Amino acid sequence: MDGQGDAICQLEESMSNLEVMPGDGRSAGKKQYAADLGSITEARERIAAYIHTTPVVTSSSLDALAECNLFFKCELLQKGGAFKFRGACNAVLSLSDDDARKGVLTHSSGNHAAAVALAARMRGVPAYIVVPNNAPTCKLNNVKRYGGRITMCEPTLESRERTAALVEEETGAALIHPFNDPRIISGQGTVALEFLEQVLQLDVIIVPISGGGLISGIALAAKALKPNIKIIAAEPSGADDAAQSKAAGHIIPMMRPNTIADGLRASLGDLTWPVVRDLVSEVVTVDDDDIIAAAKLCFEVLKLAVEPSGAIGLAAVLSKNCKHLVSAGTNVGIVLSGGNVDLEALWAAWKK
Amino acid sequence: MDGQGDAICQLEESMSNLEVMPGDGRSAGKKQYAADLGSITEARERIAAYIHTTPVVTSSSLDALAECNLFFKCELLQKGGAFKFRGACNAVLSLSDDDARKGVLTHSSGNHAAAVALAARMRGVPAYIVVPNNAPTCKLNNVKRYGGRITMCEPTLESRERTAALVEEETGAALIHPFNDPRIISGQGTVALEFLEQVLQLDVIIVPISGGGLISGIALAAKALKPNIKIIAAEPSGADDAAQSKAAGHIIPMMRPNTIADGLRASLGDLTWPVVRDLVSEVVTVDDDDIIAAAKLCFEVLKLAVEPSGAIGLAAVLSKNCKHLVSAGTNVGIVLSGGNVDLEALWAAWKK
Repeated sequence: MDGQGDAICQLEESMSNLEVMPGDGRSAGKKQYAADLGSITEARERIAAYIHTTPVVTSSSLDALAECNLFFKCELLQKGGAFKFRGACNAVLSLSDDDARKGVLTHSSGNHAAAVALAARMRGVPAYIVVPNNAPTCKLNNVKRYGGRITMCEPTLESRERTAALVEEETGAALIHPFNDPRIISGQGTVALEFLEQVLQLDVIIVPISGGGLISGIALAAKALKPNIKIIAAEPSGADDAAQSKAAGHIIPMMRPNTIADGLRASLGDLTWPVVRDLVSEVVTVDDDDIIAAAKLCFEVLKLAVEPSGAIGLAAVLSKNCKHLVSAGTNVGIVLSGGNVDLEALWAAWKK
Repeated sequence: MDGQGDAICQLEESMSNLEVMPGDGRSAGKKQYAADLGSITEARERIAAYIHTTPVVTSSSLDALAECNLFFKCELLQKGGAFKFRGACNAVLSLSDDDARKGVLTHSSGNHAAAVALAARMRGVPAYIVVPNNAPTCKLNNVKRYGGRITMCEPTLESRERTAALVEEETGAALIHPFNDPRIISGQGTVALEFLEQVLQLDVIIVPISGGGLISGIALAAKALKPNIKIIAAEPSGADDAAQSKAAGHIIPMMRPNTIADGLRASLGDLTWPVVRDLVSEVVTVDDDDIIAAAKLCFEVLKLAVEPSGAIGLAAVLSKNCKHLVSAGTNVGIVLSGGNVDLEALWAAWKK
């Protein structure tokens, strides 16, 4: 057991209005999370016509390697190439017409920026994207492809926030945070609604963790629908703030993340941390070498062009750190979260 | 119209026992093809428990580029990484126990070899694979992964056939030709049964052509179920034997294929040619540069790790040679046929 007995009982009593005890079992008072099954179900209805229902794939070769049954939820096949579009779409569609007209704004170098740009284009409103000048080219290209209006800034949080504040002041655009926002958490939670319908027998879901928007949404939805399901976070050992925070019992931000998984360098927020604290069984950390090896398996066996961050769930289930959590016959869901990866080396080789 | 009126009428009259006129309209006599809707439906029942039902994905970005509606049938997500497993599985499962016991045999450097090895392993019988000594490493590795017993030979058809004959004599194994075999054509035809169920509104299916096993099976199934559907072949201009054969009205083999699409270098066989002659509307040829550009789009936009041969359908629909065949609103199915591609350049870059 993982000390979440109280939470599970509470969930069973009140599935549509999720209120659970803190995970330590000491009932210091009820806590309402930033999202619940109701808000996630509403998000699904709101975004249904705009998103892809992503397929689930399986591989007997990878099952043999992991010594359990794996089900891969292909969020890299989501519009914009990552699950991020679910939350961005929910946030943009939640705005009133008056607010939406002024546009939306975010500061991000990654998949969230492209997702916001795409969602804004669909609604016909401008998207202002503040991008650090060291952002990966392929992700910057995605923002441009979807018509995002880019403002460059220095690659520091301070510069990003200051630049975003300036753009906000000039335009009146609505800021959409990449994870610490109830609309985002609810949108990302729709992954779990689909996944549990597609694979009835899931025992465990392994989810990449960075700011915690995806895993919070998935945990809130999945635990409400299937209280015994285990939610496991997969995190790079070079950016292990969630593992440290779980161990300490409070948020410990990551000051100098060092990992190839460029999508997993953020730290938890005050809206995602309580969910991670209470509903995530464990944080499994994996080294970059294992992330790369897992990404190679995704390309070579699954034929899916995943980005390193997106392959971390497979890395986790294959690592020794996961052996106590799964056994033969365990049905493990893995969220392949994104596929925006720079492939220039491959194209250069193909030109030869 | 493409001169197939007679064939279509005949198909409507007799859908389950397919007999059609030659496509030139002169009724020189009826011709029974190597497969029909009945044999394809039987194949589907035979292989259903062993294959993946592959997903269909869409992309509004690629729709905009192609100026029509595209539906991608992801056969690269089939077991073994290509549609080839459907036919191989059907052939291996069609053998009597006595015949199967002696094993199966093929000579191939590509996806068919891996598919035969995998199907044989599933049935618990040996697979003898004759492989030319210049075969791509990643495809050879797939054969090994599935337990195929490899005999190397010189990279000439003569050496392949002589070596295979020796192995056949020694072992009594049953030869399974990669395309010129009714069991193979029927197995590959199951792609169309699935595809037409998944996308009811298909007007056109674009299929890569090499030896013609895949397109023959698809054409026989699809035309039987939906007589007005158009089947278009996509072929590298450096291996354009099907285009030349269609123009000449008889098989013209390809002596020196020169294309990056290593899966599309074979020439039509006497069982596949009549189907291509009669039921394929047109052969669209594309240059290697366009094949590479299409494969890049598959990786970058669809997030699918396709091999160049597998991307040729997208290359075709984007080329000027296809403009007279599709228009805005046309629903075009594209078979992404395989994903066994050498990615060493990418792995080398990731290690930096």
